[in-house]
Amino acid sequence: MIAGARPTLKDIAVRAGVSVSTVSYALNEHSTLPLSDTTKATIRQIAREIGYVPNGLARSLQAGSSRTIGVLLDKPLTTPRYAAIVQGLSEGLTEQGLHLALLHKGPASQWVNAVRGYQLDGLIFIGHDDHEVPGELTELVARHGVPFVALDCGAFGEERPYSTVDFDYGAGVEVLMAELERRGTRIVYYLRPDVVSRAERIRERAVLAALGQRPEVALQVIPTGITADVLKRVDEDTDQQTAYAHEIVSRVEQALEADGTDPEHTTLLCSWGADVEAVYRVAQRRDPRFTVAGLAAGTLTTGLWPNLIYSRLPLEDAGRECARLIVGETSPSADHEHLLLPPVIDAGQIRNPETFARNRAADEK
Amino acid sequence: MIAGARPTLKDIAVRAGVSVSTVSYALNEHSTLPLSDTTKATIRQIAREIGYVPNGLARSLQAGSSRTIGVLLDKPLTTPRYAAIVQGLSEGLTEQGLHLALLHKGPASQWVNAVRGYQLDGLIFIGHDDHEVPGELTELVARHGVPFVALDCGAFGEERPYSTVDFDYGAGVEVLMAELERRGTRIVYYLRPDVVSRAERIRERAVLAALGQRPEVALQVIPTGITADVLKRVDEDTDQQTAYAHEIVSRVEQALEADGTDPEHTTLLCSWGADVEAVYRVAQRRDPRFTVAGLAAGTLTTGLWPNLIYSRLPLEDAGRECARLIVGETSPSADHEHLLLPPVIDAGQIRNPETFARNRAADEK
Repeated sequence: MIAGARPTLKDIAVRAGVSVSTVSYALNEHSTLPLSDTTKATIRQIAREIGYVPNGLARSLQAGSSRTIGVLLDKPLTTPRYAAIVQGLSEGLTEQGLHLALLHKGPASQWVNAVRGYQLDGLIFIGHDDHEVPGELTELVARHGVPFVALDCGAFGEERPYSTVDFDYGAGVEVLMAELERRGTRIVYYLRPDVVSRAERIRERAVLAALGQRPEVALQVIPTGITADVLKRVDEDTDQQTAYAHEIVSRVEQALEADGTDPEHTTLLCSWGADVEAVYRVAQRRDPRFTVAGLAAGTLTTGLWPNLIYSRLPLEDAGRECARLIVGETSPSADHEHLLLPPVIDAGQIRNPETFARNRAADEK
Repeated sequence: MIAGARPTLKDIAVRAGVSVSTVSYALNEHSTLPLSDTTKATIRQIAREIGYVPNGLARSLQAGSSRTIGVLLDKPLTTPRYAAIVQGLSEGLTEQGLHLALLHKGPASQWVNAVRGYQLDGLIFIGHDDHEVPGELTELVARHGVPFVALDCGAFGEERPYSTVDFDYGAGVEVLMAELERRGTRIVYYLRPDVVSRAERIRERAVLAALGQRPEVALQVIPTGITADVLKRVDEDTDQQTAYAHEIVSRVEQALEADGTDPEHTTLLCSWGADVEAVYRVAQRRDPRFTVAGLAAGTLTTGLWPNLIYSRLPLEDAGRECARLIVGETSPSADHEHLLLPPVIDAGQIRNPETFARNRAADEK
């Protein structure tokens, strides 16, 4: 900003021949000081003419609110999962007239103090498989009554001093297994990461339970070889992503080689959406009749690639729900809410065939 | 925030038995008022004990800076291109000690006034093929000396009242065509969108120029059928994405059917990275020897899928450069900078084989 370029209340006062406080009263919508309508109109006219802009920080200070929500995310947006969540958050916050500030790693006290110091109105924490709200942050949030929402932190059913949104991973597994059974699957190769996380345990338990109820379906586990160390490197380096993809390819090749499979009745089930692309590549190369399924969506488009099916997490919806809940949290009387969102099956079907047909027709005109 | 929960200067003053202004002076690092070291120490000790947090908005108001940069993006983060740019921006701004506020559509005056009203320190505008800085925004930025950086707005070589970062689409085409020639391509099917945008015209001119210098390579154009209307629907609706993918599939099928091709020497060249997945799917189904290339990266991983090659835009780097330039723009004496970033070839090669080998070895221990 070029110093001095910005008109001040004093500039208006000099032109109008009144005091600075009169200008201040005239421009304040909520002022109760009696000023003649003519004086108000003259002052406001001059303000418009010289391009006066009220100091937004001063207004926020007065209101004790910055209309900004801090989003705590320690994962890259280049992972589609987090981009979708932040997109939903951004849409939801915009609808509520709030701004989104993307925050990175930092001590819990820094972010809590930003709320206590009125720079942020609240915090939304985005968790993931191996990451949930740190104890120190929970303690500070509770102690200071900070408006707070935690997403995907495995909090459903637990008492927490804030609102929560979680995904129902167990229900996602059951629905997907029922669909695979309907499609004639008799053997499931379960691609399981070596990282043992909270969500991973839920999914594994659900897979075992679903197969327990379906004794005609056999289970084979293929460990994907991803440990916490490998995951960290994959997040930071595309070379490592390529290397990891090749590792998956060779592990799946070996498993299928050893068994002599029946592709028509075999599903390769990926616990992680990020593993689907490599697994699908091997399956297609060996036999296009293999089914590949993900307990979360991968980047391959269902409907374009045959025999590909996802249990898709409602990521954008979850972001929008967090935006709605943080507004509730900023009201001192509101109860905390706890949502559990079910995944949906995505096998590439057109969801709204009527709208779709209408749009195609419009194109062809 | 629970009303009254936050300790005030007055709470400290009462405990310390001094006036509120003495407390204020004692807590202000820059105060020149002489206070005894003991008084200062006592007051600061009490402030710590009762958990006093300075009002961040008041500090920002005093400094005339919010340390926050507004990012203007009218595209969804679920498009990988924009997620990568925002990731780079976020990393770059964090390194500079700045915050990132994600902004949506709104009148130009709203965002310029947010800077003039000290709520934002500057603006970064993310353009794309069919979208650049609107005239009204340019005019307001110039008039008020707003710190401003425009990314991917085709501004390189033009006089602008702000800093710019652009991609060298022409150089990307030439490098890719040289690589395709090296691989023995004799026929190029050019998948060209029906939307005619600025970047599209640059790419098309470069494709024609590159082929003009290589008379032994033949060119066939396949229009992808994407108009501005279709694009808008695809951005908003996954049904439309599936429909568009099928449209591409059938257009490529028809073109290849009609011609009787020589897969080993044929490349399907996608102007848009988003078209690569559908085109690759057809090519693989017809004959795995086809080469598929993108003038921007798609979601398929090179190195995992054979005969796939991208001219990859340095999206995260561009975001980081914008973060660096906006800091320059906030200094009143700085010149505007104009960067043109070249795309790089990505055929799935490991970029740092040494690091890669070291990490693999560490894993196996």
